[in-house]
Formats: sequence, structure tokens, C-alpha cells
Amino acid sequence: MAAQLQNATNHDIEKLGKEAIDRLVWLGRFGKDPAGGVTRLLYSREWVEAQRALKQWMESEGFVARFDEVGNLSGILEGANADETILTGSHIDTVTNGGLYDGQYGIVAGMIAIKYLKDHFGKPKRNIEVISFAEEEGSRFPYTFWGSKNVIGKASRKEVERIQDADGISFIEAMKASGFTFRDESKPPRQDLKAFIEVHVEQGQVLEAEQKSIGIVYSIVGQRRFSIEVTGEANHAGTTPMKYRKDAAYASSHMIYEMIKLAEQYGDPLVATVGKITFIPNNVNVVPGKVVFSLDVRHPDKQAIVQYSDLFKEKIRGISKEHEVEISINMQLDTDPVPMAPQLVELIENGCKLNKFSYKLMHSGAGHDAQMMAETIPTAMIFVPSRKGISHNPAEYTDYRDLGKGVKTLIGILYELAY
Amino acid sequence: MAAQLQNATNHDIEKLGKEAIDRLVWLGRFGKDPAGGVTRLLYSREWVEAQRALKQWMESEGFVARFDEVGNLSGILEGANADETILTGSHIDTVTNGGLYDGQYGIVAGMIAIKYLKDHFGKPKRNIEVISFAEEEGSRFPYTFWGSKNVIGKASRKEVERIQDADGISFIEAMKASGFTFRDESKPPRQDLKAFIEVHVEQGQVLEAEQKSIGIVYSIVGQRRFSIEVTGEANHAGTTPMKYRKDAAYASSHMIYEMIKLAEQYGDPLVATVGKITFIPNNVNVVPGKVVFSLDVRHPDKQAIVQYSDLFKEKIRGISKEHEVEISINMQLDTDPVPMAPQLVELIENGCKLNKFSYKLMHSGAGHDAQMMAETIPTAMIFVPSRKGISHNPAEYTDYRDLGKGVKTLIGILYELAY
Repeated sequence: MAAQLQNATNHDIEKLGKEAIDRLVWLGRFGKDPAGGVTRLLYSREWVEAQRALKQWMESEGFVARFDEVGNLSGILEGANADETILTGSHIDTVTNGGLYDGQYGIVAGMIAIKYLKDHFGKPKRNIEVISFAEEEGSRFPYTFWGSKNVIGKASRKEVERIQDADGISFIEAMKASGFTFRDESKPPRQDLKAFIEVHVEQGQVLEAEQKSIGIVYSIVGQRRFSIEVTGEANHAGTTPMKYRKDAAYASSHMIYEMIKLAEQYGDPLVATVGKITFIPNNVNVVPGKVVFSLDVRHPDKQAIVQYSDLFKEKIRGISKEHEVEISINMQLDTDPVPMAPQLVELIENGCKLNKFSYKLMHSGAGHDAQMMAETIPTAMIFVPSRKGISHNPAEYTDYRDLGKGVKTLIGILYELAY
Repeated sequence: MAAQLQNATNHDIEKLGKEAIDRLVWLGRFGKDPAGGVTRLLYSREWVEAQRALKQWMESEGFVARFDEVGNLSGILEGANADETILTGSHIDTVTNGGLYDGQYGIVAGMIAIKYLKDHFGKPKRNIEVISFAEEEGSRFPYTFWGSKNVIGKASRKEVERIQDADGISFIEAMKASGFTFRDESKPPRQDLKAFIEVHVEQGQVLEAEQKSIGIVYSIVGQRRFSIEVTGEANHAGTTPMKYRKDAAYASSHMIYEMIKLAEQYGDPLVATVGKITFIPNNVNVVPGKVVFSLDVRHPDKQAIVQYSDLFKEKIRGISKEHEVEISINMQLDTDPVPMAPQLVELIENGCKLNKFSYKLMHSGAGHDAQMMAETIPTAMIFVPSRKGISHNPAEYTDYRDLGKGVKTLIGILYELAY
């Protein structure tokens, strides 16, 4: 490995980190929300402005810059072999009032890394491309991964034809208004892509708590999502003695408590979350006749998700009998864990060792474009710490030195793959 | 006691019951709701029509009929001593989509009872008056017991001056539009009232479950209402390991389960209800940072309410420490139990024995006009069964023979007090 790629000096890291934070602040101006943070929804004016500004930056660095049909933006440092491309990047869209790091850090890191490689090592063997995916969050339309799904040819016109945003604007209308259109689904997707590396903020507090600068993702969790409905009997809160009640609130609180306790007992890295609940009728002086609540379960190992699902179902069915209520358990989402490419994980780990970066092999508990890309090409992810784990929030923050280490780690793996 | 007032024959009861149900159906036409049941809100057109129709019925029976300033309607069988009045009745207003029995049964029972007494025994010693209270439910404006509070002089102009209904119509505007006005608060309330007997449907399932026809209320429960706020930390459902969570849903479900279990263990007649809950942000993939829920506690003995309050607070404070969340417990309502007059309870019990009616001495878990009247005069309540305990619902139902027994029981006590 080239000398510039190991034993990173503090000076190197600080320089890369400062460049990154400057560019994040610059890019964050497009969609800066008066209510706080950045709001840059798919095909909005702010989104178009951000993509155009990025394109200018790419061109000013001497990269080939182009949009695909749907609005994914690529900046390419062409290699000797034009048929093979190493891809990096992340998504340009944000949640409403999002932070300065989620998504756009992966694009900025890619830009700075490729520029660094160009400056230090010139033309690579393979193309190196940074991509600004059109959409990942699903925060404007009820559809996620629109950008990366189009790149791998898994997006379908049918799935978005009838959806609209909260203001009633259709997906198609918004897309056309910003100058984009559907990909021709009769054509095969790109064949030149040989690997994808996504740099992203952790959005959790594990790296911070364990004082590591770099997370190397070995798997993106699988996930199951359930809607659980508990049906008892609505009754007057004053005139119904306890013994005559079929109290859906009593039964469901018992269930939720036991389900989460069970997840704790099952142990890391299983996580289980009851994030949403509805009491019916939700009136202070009525015993609830029905309660509906969500359960979100994640683990990097599918078998653990299946085991926990069996355990919690048995547990809450027992509780429903005890409380004489009916229960219905509906699985609404069931995605498999997505392992990252082991050879890429190893290369990144070696890079961290050479640079003397503290790192942790970890799973990602959140979904990322990388899980789409991994369906077709070797893929890996590099995390940097999120202060207090805060994400999807204007208070999102990562120390600039960690941003620099993320960029340096990316430089190393891109060099390995493209030179 | 007169022979007609004991050993009620089935024929007597059925006749009284049929008369009652006919009149309930007739009165229920005023405010019959296309969406189901009866909707007769204070000072609405339907309310005015019902009161006017009742007035005509009173006059046709030869009673003196008159409205007071606020719209309480009285029908009076005058006695030899015009200065002393025995009062019966209940409220004419309903909840939205209410049933055929709640409130209006007490008025109909009073009308039929007084008519019966007049027909069989002629002029009483004291006046007997049936009152159709203007309002009890608080279903149009955020104010309850407007009718009875005016009778006892506890209503205050100030309390309603600024309130309005869901359509933005002010209380005053609605009152004036239906031809009524405020009571002159400088004048003392009525001094002629010597006792109040309210007949009402139970709105619970105790009488039905225990196969009793009459409930004799010895106390109306006291009530405390709390809003409990649990503050943890909102976190990403995927990226936050269980050990790093301060999960307000986990903590609050633990609390709710233990609070209701505690109420069960405390034992009858204590009731505790968690009827309303809010998760914040209430999103399937976010660990809730805050949960707010209600607790309604009722018991006919204040000491029990105080004891249970102390117990549950200690319990949930312990749970909040275990889960490392903050807790705030706000009492929003604290009303004392209202005992009924023991001498009236005894007279009603004697009447049931003489009539060979199955009966139960019980408390009322719901609030009633009787609790206002009891502040100034000896008061009692007679309950009849509610099928399946259903109330505030078009499915409200009481067998006509039980309606007849309720009227017969009222006849007995009115005779005792007025002849």
C-alpha cells in the first residue's frame, strides 16, 4: 500500500475533516429549514438545487458528472478500464428537519476521497464514481430506496405510479416537474459496477459509548414489523367493577412489558421496539375496548428474529388468555439481514489497523442504500460516530476529526479496489 | 302504608313498565339521531322541542308546569303545604348518539309516579315535583351539572361565560337563542325543596349479573383523575441497543400493568382505569421518548382512594427508577364521595321488601344530578339494570318490567315523603 495510505497523521485527518465539515455546511444550505435542520425531500426545489450544486462541484474537480433518468447524480474519475467502476456515495434526500450528516456525508466523503486519490495517484485502473442517490428516506412519498433501486434495476414504475405526498402531489408529477423521468425498464441495469462502499453516520451511540472512531459494518439487520391488536370490551370507567372488565389497556400493557423484557433477556444485538400505540376509544373515563400497537424487531441474524418472534407470540398469547381478551398478530414487514462482503470488510479493517484508527466490527441497525446495492455487487459500509446517537434531527453531530477518519478509511479501500 | 304500595302485582308492574317505555320512545323522538340513538344537546333545537313537549304533557296531566331562568322544567302536583316540595327527576340532555334511558327515564318515571299518586291518593301534604334538568352530561359545553347546580345555587355565570361548543358557539349565545338566561345570583336558591329522589339506569352490569331489579344507591363514588407523564429518551429503533435505551413505552407499560393489578388486589369496589394514552413521537421505528397516560380512580370511600393513590405512586416511582426514566404525576380531579341520605335509603329498602322486588344496596360509579342535590337536601337514587352495562350508546336497554319496578319503587318513596 502507498505510504500516503497508512499511518495517518493528525494533520492529514484534520485537513480531511475540515474539508468535509466545510462541504457539509455548504451542501446543507440547500434545504436549510427555518424550523431547524435540513429539509430536502425528493424532487423538491431544494433537492434540485442541491443536486445541481453538487454537479458543479464535480465538474469543477474535473470529474465527469451526469444524472441518470430518475435523478441519481454521478461524478466519475475515469479509469484505464472504462468497463469497471468502483462506486461510493449515499443519498441526498433528508427527512423533514433532518441533520447535516445523514446521507450527504457519504457523498461529501466520496468527493473528497476521489479528489485525494486523483491528486496523489492520478488516473486509476478502474473508474471511481461517487453517486448522490436521489432518494433513500421515504420521507416525501411512501417509498424508500428509489435511488439505489433504480441503479440495480429493482425499482418499478408500477410501485410509484399511484403514490402521492402529504400535499396530494403525485410522484410522477413531482418527478416530471424537476426534469426527470422513469428508467426504461426494458433495458438491463448497469453492468460496470464492481463494488459499492457507503460511508455514513452510525445513527446510534455504540461507537461513542465504546470510544471508537470507525464502525465497519459486517451486516445490515433483518427486520420484522408486527401490528398487534388486542380486543377486550369497552366499559364505563366508573360503573364496571374490575372483575367484570376485559380491559384491553391492562392486557396490552402486560404484553408490552413482557415482550420488551423478553428482548432484553434474549440479549444483544436483538432490539425490540413498541413505538406506536392506539387506545380505542382513548377516553379518560372509558375502559379501552381495543388497543393496537406496533412491534419492530431487528437482529443481524435471521434465526434470532425467528426465535424471538416465536417466543413473544407464545408469551402474549398466554397473557391474552389470562386477561380474557382476543389477540391478533399481523406481520407487516419481514426483511432478511444483508451481510456485507467479507473481503471488503477485511480490507477496511486492515486499513484501520494501518492508520491506527480505533474501530469496531458492527452491524447496522438502520437500513441503508448499501442493502440494495449488496443484492448485486460486493458492498461494504463505513460508520463514523453520532454524538449521543442522535439522528434525523438538527442536533445530529459528528466530530470533524471522525469525519476525517471516515474519509481517510474510504480513500484506503477505494485505492485498494481501483488502483 | 297504603295497600296499593305493597305486594306489587305483575299486572301493576307491567302496566307501569309499558307506560314508561311508551313515553321513552315518544320523548326519544326529539333528537332522534340519523346516525343512531338520541342526540339532544343543551340549548339545541331538539332539546328545546323535548322540553316543550314535556311541558305539554305535564299540563295535560293537570300539573303546574314552568321553566326556571336557565331552562330547568318543573311539573308540580301541589300539596296542602305549598312551602315544602319533594323533588324527583333527572336530566333531559344526552351525550351524542346516546341511548333511550339515560336521564330521560328519571323524568318519565317521575311523571308516571306523580300521576299514579294523584290518581290513587289525590292532593298530597307536600308538593311533589318532577324536574327535567337542563343539563348534566357536559356533552355540548365543557361544563357539567348546569341544571342541578342552578337549582341549588351553585352555578356561576363566570364559569360559563367564556366557554363554547365544538362549533365555536358560545354558551351565552346558545342559551339566549333558546330563550333562557342566567339565574339572578344575588337571590337565594329555592328553600322549599325537602328531598330529592333520582331514578336512573345503572350504566353498569352489576344488577344484571346479580339478577337484581332495583339498585338502592348508598353513595356516589369519589373520584381522582391523574395525568402521568413518563419521560425517557427518544431513540432510533434499529441503532440503539437495549442497554442504551430509556424507553418510555417499556417503563409506562410496566407501570400501567402494575397499577391496574394493584387496584385488583386492593379489591372491590375500587376501580382504576387507564383510558387514554399518548406515545411521543408514536412512530413504529422510534423508541418513544415520552408517554402520557390517564388514570381514573373511584371508590365510595375517600380513604380508599387516598390509600390507593399513595400505593400506586410509590409503585410507579419505584418502576421509574428501575427504568431510569423521569415521572410526573399530576392530579387533575379530586372529588369526594357523596353519601345518600340513610333515612331515604332505608325507606326505599323497606319499599322493595314490601313489593318483593329483588334489590341491592350499591354505590354509583358514575356521577349524577343527585350528587349536586345531596349538597343541600336529603337525596337518594334508585337504579334499574342496564343490559350488559351498556350506556351512552344507542344499544342502551332496560327490560320494561324493570322500568316498571323502578317507577313503583319511586311511587312508594314519594308517598312516604309527601302524603
